[in-house]
Amino acid sequence: MKKFMSFCQNLILLKMDTIETLLGHRSIRKYKDQAIDDLVLDQILEAATRASTTGNMQVYSIIVTKDEEKRKALQPLHFNQPSIGQAPVVLTFCADFNRFNKWCELRNANPGYDNFLSFMTASIDALLAAQNACIAAEANGLGICYFGTTTYMAEQLIEFFKLPKGVVPITTVTIGYPDENPELVDRLPAEAIVHYEEYKDFTNEDIERLYKEKEEMEVYKEFVKENSTENLAQVFTQVRYKKADNVHFSNTLLSVLEKQGFMNNA
Amino acid sequence: MKKFMSFCQNLILLKMDTIETLLGHRSIRKYKDQAIDDLVLDQILEAATRASTTGNMQVYSIIVTKDEEKRKALQPLHFNQPSIGQAPVVLTFCADFNRFNKWCELRNANPGYDNFLSFMTASIDALLAAQNACIAAEANGLGICYFGTTTYMAEQLIEFFKLPKGVVPITTVTIGYPDENPELVDRLPAEAIVHYEEYKDFTNEDIERLYKEKEEMEVYKEFVKENSTENLAQVFTQVRYKKADNVHFSNTLLSVLEKQGFMNNA
Repeated sequence: MKKFMSFCQNLILLKMDTIETLLGHRSIRKYKDQAIDDLVLDQILEAATRASTTGNMQVYSIIVTKDEEKRKALQPLHFNQPSIGQAPVVLTFCADFNRFNKWCELRNANPGYDNFLSFMTASIDALLAAQNACIAAEANGLGICYFGTTTYMAEQLIEFFKLPKGVVPITTVTIGYPDENPELVDRLPAEAIVHYEEYKDFTNEDIERLYKEKEEMEVYKEFVKENSTENLAQVFTQVRYKKADNVHFSNTLLSVLEKQGFMNNA
Repeated sequence: MKKFMSFCQNLILLKMDTIETLLGHRSIRKYKDQAIDDLVLDQILEAATRASTTGNMQVYSIIVTKDEEKRKALQPLHFNQPSIGQAPVVLTFCADFNRFNKWCELRNANPGYDNFLSFMTASIDALLAAQNACIAAEANGLGICYFGTTTYMAEQLIEFFKLPKGVVPITTVTIGYPDENPELVDRLPAEAIVHYEEYKDFTNEDIERLYKEKEEMEVYKEFVKENSTENLAQVFTQVRYKKADNVHFSNTLLSVLEKQGFMNNA
C-alpha cells in the first residue's frame, strides 16, 4: 500500500511537469561551457513552430546563432551583456512577412501586409513562438533569458543578420545549461495583474499595498542604495529605463518599421 | 520485469509532458458547457505571471471574462466568433504601464513610458504571459484559441473593459473543455522558419518547394474552391487578410496608441 501511494505520488508529481516548468522559471544569465545537442535544439525549434500563429500564416522567423565568433560579435549589439557571448545558442525571433509576401507575389496574389497592423500580427507570432521555445528549453533542463535590447538595436541587428524588407527582430533569447541557481524572482500580488470583468483602476492605497512587499525586500533596498536614488521606482526611471533612452529608441524603432516596409498605412 | 518496463515507459511518457503539451497544441473553437474550477483558473493565471517580464516591471494586465452576459456582449467585438460567447473563460491580455506609472508618480519618480518603445515592451510582456496561460490551460486538459481581432478592435475593447490611459489590449484567448478533437494543423518545413547564423533569403524555387505540400492538401484545395480564388495565396490576400482591412485597422490601432498615451516620442 505504501509503495502504491508513493507510485501514485510520483505519477501526480510527473503529471505536474508542465505546470512545474512554467512555475519554476528563472532567467539564467550564467551558462556552462557545454554545447546543446542538435536533437535537443531541433525539439526546441519544433516546439516553437507549434505555437499558435495568425491564420496559420507563420509570419515570423528564428535566427539561430551558434557560431562562437558570431555570438561574440553579437554581444556588443546587446549592450555587451556577457551571456550573449557565453550561451551556446542565441535565438533571435523576428516578425517576418518576407516569405509570405514572396509566396503571394509568385501566386499572382497582391500582399497587403506592408502596414502597422501586419507588423503587430507578425510580432505576436514571433513572441508566442519564442515563449514556446523557452518552455521547451527549460523542460530539457536548459536555462533561458530574454533580451529587451532587441527592439532598441533592431537597426543594427537587421544589418548583422542581413534581414530583408518585411523582417524586424523583436526579441532575443539565450539558451544553455545553467551555471547558476537563482531564487525564484518576486512577483506582485495577483490583484496587480488580474482584473475580473472590468479593469479596476488603482487608488494610491492600492499601489501602496501592492508594492509594499517588493519595496521592503533587502535585495531592492540594496539596489536603491547602490544606485543612489531615493526609492526603487527612481531606479527604474533614473537608471534602468530612462525617458530619454525610451524616446530615442522609440524613434529608431519607428524608423526601422518604415525602412522594413511596415508603415504604409494609407 | 514486464510490469517494471511498463512502469518505466509510463515514467518516460509522463516526463515528456511539457514537450507533449507544446507539440500537441491545437486551437479549440468548440467548448463543452462546463465551467473551469477556480483553482484551475488561478493556476493558469499564476503560470501567466511567472513568464519573463522586462526588468520585472510586469507591465501587462489580464482581464478575465467569466460572466456569461459579458461574454455574449464581447462576442460582437470579436467579429461575432461564437466561441467567445461559448467558452467559460475569455482572457484579454493588455500592454499596461498604468499601474507602473501610478507607482512612479507616487514615489516622486518621473515615468518616461508614454512612447512607442514602451508600448512594444509592454506588448512583449503581455504576449509571453498569454502563451504561458495557454500552455498551463492545455496541461490541465483545457483547449485554447487566440483571437487576432483584439488589435483590430482595440478601441471598442478599451471602452468595453474601461481601460485607462497606458493600457492597450493586445490579444484574447478563449479557454474551456474541448468539444472537438481537431487534427494537428500543418506547418511549413522548418527551413521556412529557421535560419542559421544569417538570414537566408528565399528564391522562387525555395518558395515553390516550401509551399508545395501545403498547396496540395485537400483541405486547402477545398478552401480555394469555396472562396472562388485561383489559389491559396489569394484566399489570404482577397478574402481573409485584405489590404484595405489591414490599412484601416493599422490606422485605428495607431490612433489607439496615441489616445492611450504611447506615441509621445519627442
